[in-house]
Amino acid sequence: MMEGNNKKIYMQEVVTRDGFQNEKNFISTDKKIELINQLSQCGYSKIEVTSFTSPKAIPALRDAEQVMQGIIRHPDITYTVLVPNIRGAERALSCDVDEVNLVMSASEAHNLSNLRMARETSFYGLCQVINEVQPSNTFINVSLSTAFGCPMEGNVSLETVLSWVARFEEKGVHGITLCDTTGMAYPTQVAEMVAAFKKRFPYLQLTVHLHNTRGMALSNALAAIENGADRFDSALGGLGGCPYAPGATGNVSTEDLVHMLELMGYCTGINQEKVLKAAARLPALVHHDVPSQVLKAGHRLNLHDIPDTIKEHQGN
Amino acid sequence: MMEGNNKKIYMQEVVTRDGFQNEKNFISTDKKIELINQLSQCGYSKIEVTSFTSPKAIPALRDAEQVMQGIIRHPDITYTVLVPNIRGAERALSCDVDEVNLVMSASEAHNLSNLRMARETSFYGLCQVINEVQPSNTFINVSLSTAFGCPMEGNVSLETVLSWVARFEEKGVHGITLCDTTGMAYPTQVAEMVAAFKKRFPYLQLTVHLHNTRGMALSNALAAIENGADRFDSALGGLGGCPYAPGATGNVSTEDLVHMLELMGYCTGINQEKVLKAAARLPALVHHDVPSQVLKAGHRLNLHDIPDTIKEHQGN
Repeated sequence: MMEGNNKKIYMQEVVTRDGFQNEKNFISTDKKIELINQLSQCGYSKIEVTSFTSPKAIPALRDAEQVMQGIIRHPDITYTVLVPNIRGAERALSCDVDEVNLVMSASEAHNLSNLRMARETSFYGLCQVINEVQPSNTFINVSLSTAFGCPMEGNVSLETVLSWVARFEEKGVHGITLCDTTGMAYPTQVAEMVAAFKKRFPYLQLTVHLHNTRGMALSNALAAIENGADRFDSALGGLGGCPYAPGATGNVSTEDLVHMLELMGYCTGINQEKVLKAAARLPALVHHDVPSQVLKAGHRLNLHDIPDTIKEHQGN
Repeated sequence: MMEGNNKKIYMQEVVTRDGFQNEKNFISTDKKIELINQLSQCGYSKIEVTSFTSPKAIPALRDAEQVMQGIIRHPDITYTVLVPNIRGAERALSCDVDEVNLVMSASEAHNLSNLRMARETSFYGLCQVINEVQPSNTFINVSLSTAFGCPMEGNVSLETVLSWVARFEEKGVHGITLCDTTGMAYPTQVAEMVAAFKKRFPYLQLTVHLHNTRGMALSNALAAIENGADRFDSALGGLGGCPYAPGATGNVSTEDLVHMLELMGYCTGINQEKVLKAAARLPALVHHDVPSQVLKAGHRLNLHDIPDTIKEHQGN
């Protein structure tokens, strides 16, 4: 098990996009902005603010412009937004985002089910977006959903995933996110995928996006790190999830991942106290409990008082 | 991240002891027996059946004799029971158990709080139990609580833990369980502890007992395996927990741990389908939801149907 030795791990917060997009109760624009401003003080490398999708498709994020324009941007943080198409790209660019995050699935069935089009159609559309965005010098990232398995097709081969990466690399994108959309990834698989990616695409920024559906997210993160990954999406409170995986818990929890990595000697740059304070606000914002475990149990050295009767005993 | 390569990992089920002991609603003797008989068909190496503690101290397990004598014992499984003192040992031996599992804490405050005596007093008492049990050739295991941290004292040094192990080794016990009683262990710490244990006590049977309080149980298991551990306690459904760690989730879930290890190529000998069937009975038995994630989400390759509209689309 690799010691951290102060190796830098870059943390990217996705709660206000991937976390909030499935929430039934609309979270007010002011509260979103307030939360993002709070998160901007926590030491993240990147924050995925919102999604410039159609307000009809994702009403929870219908205030994308207001949120993006309302936040106070920290100079050290990359503010990214999800962009599904040309219209979304135009809206995002008009808000002067630092990065656009495009998305398609590595598996055909999930792309059809989630984006209602074939992968080739998605690719063609995203190439148009890339052409549109490139002159602005905005950073372009592509998120590949179901890169570690598809809830409908099952296994997705490493070669399938890497061939999509190759096609986007050729188009000149800056970063790729490998997404374990429904928590199907397991450690040895992640190790193999990340090692192959790093070998073939050493100059692409790689983000690993894990879900904790089957409890393996932290183990998968360690497998990724051991094979050269240093950048993770995570969601405050472990919010998020996928409508195609009923019963699933959400994204890997920021506070759980940071807590483990810092104990192991990695340097995430995250202020754990501030992150926990922000996470503690979530249940009131979303009106339900959140899966995060460190939020419930506290840091491992949050000690309990020794009962008085025992203190006396110890004195003997 | 180490591939399993069919390496054998021994699984020890603790749900009817560590899981049930804190349940408020008494689970009937018949239902306990029925569950243990079901678990005996799942491929475990060891099952911790019950605890021969005072019925006043742990009323949930007041039927220890009836359960131990009522189950159908599988010849390949070691049936173990927790034994706190001479009286418990006598009761256990009268039931012809395969193993007695003695317990004390590695930290003074937890021993005082949990067992109401100093560690030296516990050690003296357990030595008497060992003397009592040894002539019967019953296997003797000692569980060291708070081996990876104490919820009241904080860190417990590796040397403290190993010095208690050494004292029990000298007394001739067969096995030691290092318990992460309140989920304070983290992967690099587990790696160091297990490596040191295996080097110093190569002939003692080592069990690692993990709790998932802060989400790290599966990562800790991998760290333990990479350093020579091959034997784990786990609880069906992830039941269990500790009264001194409020909000904490329980033991590492059997089905979550087995699911990950089998995907990585380890051979646990566990029939996952049978274990999930047994786990599915738990919520009705304990009258509440259980933390297990694979129980909710299913095996990673439990696929969802492709919606009809998409099937048509794929046909195009």
